[in-house]
Amino acid sequence: MYSFQNDYSEGAHPNILRALETINYHQNNSYGLDEHCDNARDKIQEALENYGVDIHFITGGTLTNLTFLSHALRPYEAVISADTGHINTHETGAIEASGHKVLSIPCTDGKLTADLIRPVLKQHENEHWVEPRLVYISLPTELGTVYTKEELEKLYQFCKRHNLYLYIDGARLAMALAVEETQLTLKDLPDLCDAFYIGGTKNGAMFGEALILVNDDLKDHFRFNMKQRGAILAKGWMIGVQFEELFQDNLYLELGKRSVALAQRLKEGFIDCKIPFLCDSPTNQLFPIFPNEFAKKINENYVTTFQCKPDENHTCLRFCTSWATNEQAVEDFIKDLKQWSYIYA
Amino acid sequence: MYSFQNDYSEGAHPNILRALETINYHQNNSYGLDEHCDNARDKIQEALENYGVDIHFITGGTLTNLTFLSHALRPYEAVISADTGHINTHETGAIEASGHKVLSIPCTDGKLTADLIRPVLKQHENEHWVEPRLVYISLPTELGTVYTKEELEKLYQFCKRHNLYLYIDGARLAMALAVEETQLTLKDLPDLCDAFYIGGTKNGAMFGEALILVNDDLKDHFRFNMKQRGAILAKGWMIGVQFEELFQDNLYLELGKRSVALAQRLKEGFIDCKIPFLCDSPTNQLFPIFPNEFAKKINENYVTTFQCKPDENHTCLRFCTSWATNEQAVEDFIKDLKQWSYIYA
Amino acid sequence: MYSFQNDYSEGAHPNILRALETINYHQNNSYGLDEHCDNARDKIQEALENYGVDIHFITGGTLTNLTFLSHALRPYEAVISADTGHINTHETGAIEASGHKVLSIPCTDGKLTADLIRPVLKQHENEHWVEPRLVYISLPTELGTVYTKEELEKLYQFCKRHNLYLYIDGARLAMALAVEETQLTLKDLPDLCDAFYIGGTKNGAMFGEALILVNDDLKDHFRFNMKQRGAILAKGWMIGVQFEELFQDNLYLELGKRSVALAQRLKEGFIDCKIPFLCDSPTNQLFPIFPNEFAKKINENYVTTFQCKPDENHTCLRFCTSWATNEQAVEDFIKDLKQWSYIYA
Amino acid sequence: MYSFQNDYSEGAHPNILRALETINYHQNNSYGLDEHCDNARDKIQEALENYGVDIHFITGGTLTNLTFLSHALRPYEAVISADTGHINTHETGAIEASGHKVLSIPCTDGKLTADLIRPVLKQHENEHWVEPRLVYISLPTELGTVYTKEELEKLYQFCKRHNLYLYIDGARLAMALAVEETQLTLKDLPDLCDAFYIGGTKNGAMFGEALILVNDDLKDHFRFNMKQRGAILAKGWMIGVQFEELFQDNLYLELGKRSVALAQRLKEGFIDCKIPFLCDSPTNQLFPIFPNEFAKKINENYVTTFQCKPDENHTCLRFCTSWATNEQAVEDFIKDLKQWSYIYA
Repeated sequence: MYSFQNDYSEGAHPNILRALETINYHQNNSYGLDEHCDNARDKIQEALENYGVDIHFITGGTLTNLTFLSHALRPYEAVISADTGHINTHETGAIEASGHKVLSIPCTDGKLTADLIRPVLKQHENEHWVEPRLVYISLPTELGTVYTKEELEKLYQFCKRHNLYLYIDGARLAMALAVEETQLTLKDLPDLCDAFYIGGTKNGAMFGEALILVNDDLKDHFRFNMKQRGAILAKGWMIGVQFEELFQDNLYLELGKRSVALAQRLKEGFIDCKIPFLCDSPTNQLFPIFPNEFAKKINENYVTTFQCKPDENHTCLRFCTSWATNEQAVEDFIKDLKQWSYIYA
Repeated sequence: MYSFQNDYSEGAHPNILRALETINYHQNNSYGLDEHCDNARDKIQEALENYGVDIHFITGGTLTNLTFLSHALRPYEAVISADTGHINTHETGAIEASGHKVLSIPCTDGKLTADLIRPVLKQHENEHWVEPRLVYISLPTELGTVYTKEELEKLYQFCKRHNLYLYIDGARLAMALAVEETQLTLKDLPDLCDAFYIGGTKNGAMFGEALILVNDDLKDHFRFNMKQRGAILAKGWMIGVQFEELFQDNLYLELGKRSVALAQRLKEGFIDCKIPFLCDSPTNQLFPIFPNEFAKKINENYVTTFQCKPDENHTCLRFCTSWATNEQAVEDFIKDLKQWSYIYA
Repeated sequence: MYSFQNDYSEGAHPNILRALETINYHQNNSYGLDEHCDNARDKIQEALENYGVDIHFITGGTLTNLTFLSHALRPYEAVISADTGHINTHETGAIEASGHKVLSIPCTDGKLTADLIRPVLKQHENEHWVEPRLVYISLPTELGTVYTKEELEKLYQFCKRHNLYLYIDGARLAMALAVEETQLTLKDLPDLCDAFYIGGTKNGAMFGEALILVNDDLKDHFRFNMKQRGAILAKGWMIGVQFEELFQDNLYLELGKRSVALAQRLKEGFIDCKIPFLCDSPTNQLFPIFPNEFAKKINENYVTTFQCKPDENHTCLRFCTSWATNEQAVEDFIKDLKQWSYIYA
Repeated sequence: MYSFQNDYSEGAHPNILRALETINYHQNNSYGLDEHCDNARDKIQEALENYGVDIHFITGGTLTNLTFLSHALRPYEAVISADTGHINTHETGAIEASGHKVLSIPCTDGKLTADLIRPVLKQHENEHWVEPRLVYISLPTELGTVYTKEELEKLYQFCKRHNLYLYIDGARLAMALAVEETQLTLKDLPDLCDAFYIGGTKNGAMFGEALILVNDDLKDHFRFNMKQRGAILAKGWMIGVQFEELFQDNLYLELGKRSVALAQRLKEGFIDCKIPFLCDSPTNQLFPIFPNEFAKKINENYVTTFQCKPDENHTCLRFCTSWATNEQAVEDFIKDLKQWSYIYA
């Protein structure tokens, strides 16, 4: 049964496997202090056109988020997040476990704005309240939506005026950068936030994320906190090699484009069948809403993720494509969809 | 320059690379709930001859230790460790960062005994003191020494009588099991402790440890704490596949034997040259002591780890072999050693 | 300028001062293990008609809440609270600082119900989410509202069915018990929750709260966590003596009645002047809403607490009476109010 | 049975009780922002001859230590303490519970020196180790010993050279200042450390310590961390009033002198009877060593604290005097002692 469940159900891009095999018996320095990590850092800096950022490689997204946030915040400081933010929902309270409140803001499309944040700042006025100190956003959001370059600029200016760090969870950053309408490119990011991570796990790597520390205030002693959180891999070059490959010949961005293109092909299919969406996603996650029986039929033939029930009679499913999604499977699904839509729509 | 610096400077056993390549485009369940992890669990249970243990796969040793210990202990409870214990020295206070005191006990050979632990228990008598609740040992220890089966039996009986969990850090477990004199085998372990981990990183895996929960009291909700600590890998099968290979045809134990055999070949070389040792290690880490000039000469030609200076005129270096250590390099080193020993010893 | 700002701006009931003076030179056991604490425990058990509860004395409310909650919860467990709950707003993230997420539920009157909690439970379905384990309510709430005995019964039954502890923050418990309509009495409480505290600070004590642990599962090793949090007072009898006095001849309940009666006298005054309220409070905190100019006039002559601005032209102030509020001051204020209401209403 | 068990078994100096009674019905600002706290701050600054320090009032010593230390340290930073240090033994792991390792150094007299600290710094060399950042000392130490002014100067200079904060736990500071030989006076302290606390609980107060923040780097947002730890008392003036009295007419120092003088009178008695000591204490805690039968006889007639058993046949008891110790009781005890020493010595 073909799966559109997520973008981390296949292995790694073949270039990565080949590279790991090639150097398998080389002796490397450990803990991310080897030449592959250094080389990957160089390539990422080049792609960012910024040679001042610090770059650390960490195995997964939750570990990256909790290590970074617990490093950035003093004990009484809190992080602001959309209520749908990954740290607020799907990380089992990892941020609170490191001692910090997540101030969640309800928002329909997963995106934060100055207007949404302002009242939270106003309410937190003295030492009886936590001090908001950092804004966490996901790009794309957990609902597949994206920020335009202009939106990010405004948000970051607001953050700087209010002494708030801005941190971008880029688990699927490549997919956001595949959306041309945002006018956002990789090299814009260091100017638009204090820190962000470039997600590898969901875009062609076996595992691994590259955390980019832009603001100098956030750089000091970071490796101490990494080690304390278990976030320094002994064979650190295993991630370095992967990012060397991902940042060779634009592979990282190309893989993101591929998965977005296939999702948008699916989207056309849904639109053709007049299937509505929970929200309008231009990236690789789609949230179509089906009559319950229609959803049931789909799930008997394809693997998807249950998202929610907008009402008693309808079911919203998440469809997710990846760098490895099979084109033919997409076309097959669209054919099935059209057929079933005659019966169930 | 050939390196005897550690046992994690080379990649992965070729069987592992081949297996990862074979399944690269398969679609797997995520978060360690896939068939490769399940299959690896079956194989490990079979090797342990124990089908009741819970098995979890985690990327590295520090992350395994902190996730397990913070799961096992209530806030006021503490862990007892040798002063040389990895959690007490080289994990940047990860256990304290999760809220728990490490009660360290000075000991010359890295090994704990009932006699060493008893006074600590006696001192911690009421609510003004932390409550010792768990004994942490490394096998082999950080000094390369091992516990015999009988020593472990006595220690575990003592722990059970005093309401202490016993946890074994098995980062190099394969190397301990390669020492026949201990009469300890893999299948003995579930009877000799409450939990332990089988280290992959230092014995042929790219990364990954298999945590074995034996005591039922320690099993409940463990995956919640894993997720909270960032210790659930999205593509969890990446570790599952590795342990499938390591537990195929005894590979895990064979790799351990190989690295120990090469270290013991080195040891013979040192003994031939009348080089004394910091302690007598039967495993893959050796701690020979050289006159300073001798050590300097070695380090100009080989990579080793500085251990300590026993006195002003001598230097103790750590030599470490691995599953991938080159036999010829060992012989070459011994030849060099003999030559240098005429000059510097 | 007379103050209706809060119920902790005056000292202690004279009986308490007298008792402390009487025993001043006695030599007492320390850390709450003295005869005054024991005697206070006896009196409280008698008032509760329950001799199985454990009773601990702690200096203040935030310290009581954080010590209890961090004791009750395992690392991945979370507490459910109304969004107005004291732990969610005015404790500077103390619960998160101890590692636990506060799942806050929006509600207009500060009160939780099964219907409000149920969707939260449903959402938290697996190890990617925190596990809701405890429901925190305030009685009276931060908006002065109360639960009836029947409401509490239903809520507690719901909690028990869903494996949730129920904990009552009784900072102003005496004021809730002064509201006859609820049919709730002190001795009902051990049957209606797993733990609660009887607030002294806001009802006649210098400082000090009595934490009542009802559920046996919550009793073990509690003093260890108290000590770790700095919540064991060296001269513990200082709180014991105070509760001896508060539970002599019903003083505790009488003081609560007195402050509620004076607040309700104020309430009549507001109603006479047709001043609306943010919510209908039968206890000692009132939330009248004034035209801005009216509020300004009041604040030039009396001390109150700013609550919020319901709209641009109106201001909601909190009026709070205490066990020590001056009756004549209440009457004087009402006279002023009536006069000003001609001008500003 | 008269008690020499500790210095916190009696109530408060009568001046304090009188002052609390006098202002009992005044309406005060809450949370330590009242005029009594401000006045106490002025008096303490005057006594310190330093008007730049920040002063915070906290109910007890453990709460003061944990609030300050968790404020001063970043997550990967550790505190150095003598192995006998209160934070290392009798605070149930409070510092570790806030995330920080206590690096304890064995020392016979409870006192730290540069020579003892230097090897610890050397060992902690990179991100695999915690970073030592603060030195904690007690003055007097838990063994009753004191630092001379010169010793403190040297220690602080060492700390500054090595980027270490120096923090003094002054639970019994008045008793250290009563020892003239040290040449240390209250006003020297702000020049000799980064922060310290002036203990009230053990020197005439009901409860309460005054934390003095000297180093500007430690002042920012401290009240946020206080509130988060439950260390802001609602009726904060209760401590302010006490320190107003303690710093009126030198009372604080006089009470310290009194308790030390009585202890030294006891000491003479022990010396007359040729009773040896565990260590030579010039303050209000004495540690005489008795034959077991002698100790038993004493404990049948007086309350003391068991300290340790130096060998099988001897018992070391702690004798402690306080501001309220009865002179006659001291003389009575000495008479008893002399009599018993004929029989048991």
